[in-house]
Amino acid sequence: MLNNLLIIGCGLIGSSVLRASLSKKIAKKIFIYERSKKNREIIKKINSKIIILKRIDDNIRNINFIIICTPMSEYKKVFSQINIFISKSTIITEVGSTKKNLLKYNSRNIVLSHPIAGSEVSGPKYGHKDLFKNKWCILIKKTNIKNLNVVKKFWSKLGSKIVIMNADEHDKIFSITSHLPHLIAYNLIKTAQDFQKKERKNVIKYSAGGLRDFSRTAASNEVMWRDIFFSNKKNLIISIDLFIKNLSLFKKNIKLYKNLNLIKDLKNAKKVRNQIIRLKQDVSKPDFGRVIK
Amino acid sequence: MLNNLLIIGCGLIGSSVLRASLSKKIAKKIFIYERSKKNREIIKKINSKIIILKRIDDNIRNINFIIICTPMSEYKKVFSQINIFISKSTIITEVGSTKKNLLKYNSRNIVLSHPIAGSEVSGPKYGHKDLFKNKWCILIKKTNIKNLNVVKKFWSKLGSKIVIMNADEHDKIFSITSHLPHLIAYNLIKTAQDFQKKERKNVIKYSAGGLRDFSRTAASNEVMWRDIFFSNKKNLIISIDLFIKNLSLFKKNIKLYKNLNLIKDLKNAKKVRNQIIRLKQDVSKPDFGRVIK
Repeated sequence: MLNNLLIIGCGLIGSSVLRASLSKKIAKKIFIYERSKKNREIIKKINSKIIILKRIDDNIRNINFIIICTPMSEYKKVFSQINIFISKSTIITEVGSTKKNLLKYNSRNIVLSHPIAGSEVSGPKYGHKDLFKNKWCILIKKTNIKNLNVVKKFWSKLGSKIVIMNADEHDKIFSITSHLPHLIAYNLIKTAQDFQKKERKNVIKYSAGGLRDFSRTAASNEVMWRDIFFSNKKNLIISIDLFIKNLSLFKKNIKLYKNLNLIKDLKNAKKVRNQIIRLKQDVSKPDFGRVIK
Repeated sequence: MLNNLLIIGCGLIGSSVLRASLSKKIAKKIFIYERSKKNREIIKKINSKIIILKRIDDNIRNINFIIICTPMSEYKKVFSQINIFISKSTIITEVGSTKKNLLKYNSRNIVLSHPIAGSEVSGPKYGHKDLFKNKWCILIKKTNIKNLNVVKKFWSKLGSKIVIMNADEHDKIFSITSHLPHLIAYNLIKTAQDFQKKERKNVIKYSAGGLRDFSRTAASNEVMWRDIFFSNKKNLIISIDLFIKNLSLFKKNIKLYKNLNLIKDLKNAKKVRNQIIRLKQDVSKPDFGRVIK
């Protein structure tokens, strides 16, 4: 058990770390630093024992473990504040969705991690103690094994399955499995909006035929995703180019009625679904659209 | 109540029409024509009163109402078969996802319809009596109001909310709300497959960060979607071009760190989610990923 845990930034992810830590009795005392007053009011009600810090100051000297859950664009400020006060033995981790851009913070006592968990909603209201349960948590390789193991143990207690890789590999993989899909969802919704304006038709009304599912992803937090898109620019642009190349091929096959090519591509794409189910990244229960009253 | 109802093609949609018709006591007798032996065995078990036809022949002369639920690429054959035997008073409808290509069949007793309902799974095993409940069903405008009203009543009894529009309008709207989203999902999965091959990394393993949701859509029936993409080629290509234009703009804004432009686009896309919830096309309950054991 940790003596003192500090969570900096207490939105969806931070408040889920908080709830999971309380539920798993991870620390004797849990401290929170959260800028938004509205969020602080919600957090207070979660548990009366939580200690809410008014500022980052000498009071954090005795903290053993800090987890930063702010948007990545806040890191520079956060690190410069905490570095003044923390002791040498404090272990720090964070939850950013890209990693190569964070290597500059990667000193002896800092471990970079990325829990693959979240939702389209933001804020502490939606946090959940089981958010990390059975989900991957990626830790970035480092030479100091001892500190890596402390963070590994932390996420394991919260229910995560740990994978260790380097920042380069991480950013490549998630550019295609997460960053590109989110950008595509935002772009599809933007395209539907432009179409609606151009055609002066209420198309959103008929979104149950496919568009709806993308709108969920495109409702994700814009600051978080702006940070991710900028931070993983290089890999993301390679992915965008590959996507456009493939889409142009689909267009050509449709335009020229290339039946065999088209059927082959559609059939192949279908196979991934079974792989995903086999790898327990989703369940096989079919989706008929959520029940609408 | 109809005297005799015939369902031609009994996959996901046909078997859902069957189950809903049984549940709502729509017809005195229900006939099925289905080519696949495997499917027929499943259908037999749904209800012992269903009459399964071995072929389209003189036995269909007394049918009052026919609904065609085969892929659209079968229509030519189906219509040429039934036209030999049906009586003048038989009303025919169908469930194809594009409409302008079907206007050639649109004679006095044929009403074109499109229930906005389905799933990524195929076959009668997955059919459901409530598939059409509270879902839109689009009927294509026609001069013969009497026959239109019979079909309108049919879908209303199955629980659908009816909208009447012309084929042109239908194909434009659904190119953006359904056909483009499906093509984009297929293309995203194909891009991830290509990436996986190129990088020799198991990326599918980490699909919970976004890719997973697209794989569901991309697991839809390939024959049905090939037919749709070919049939609505003109509108779909306009939509693809608009999509690529917008994606290139996103790419440019990311490449040049255009913060304000990017945040504006992401924020705007987010608004559609609330519109969709307000229009009852989805519920607001957040998605944290399906529970994985």
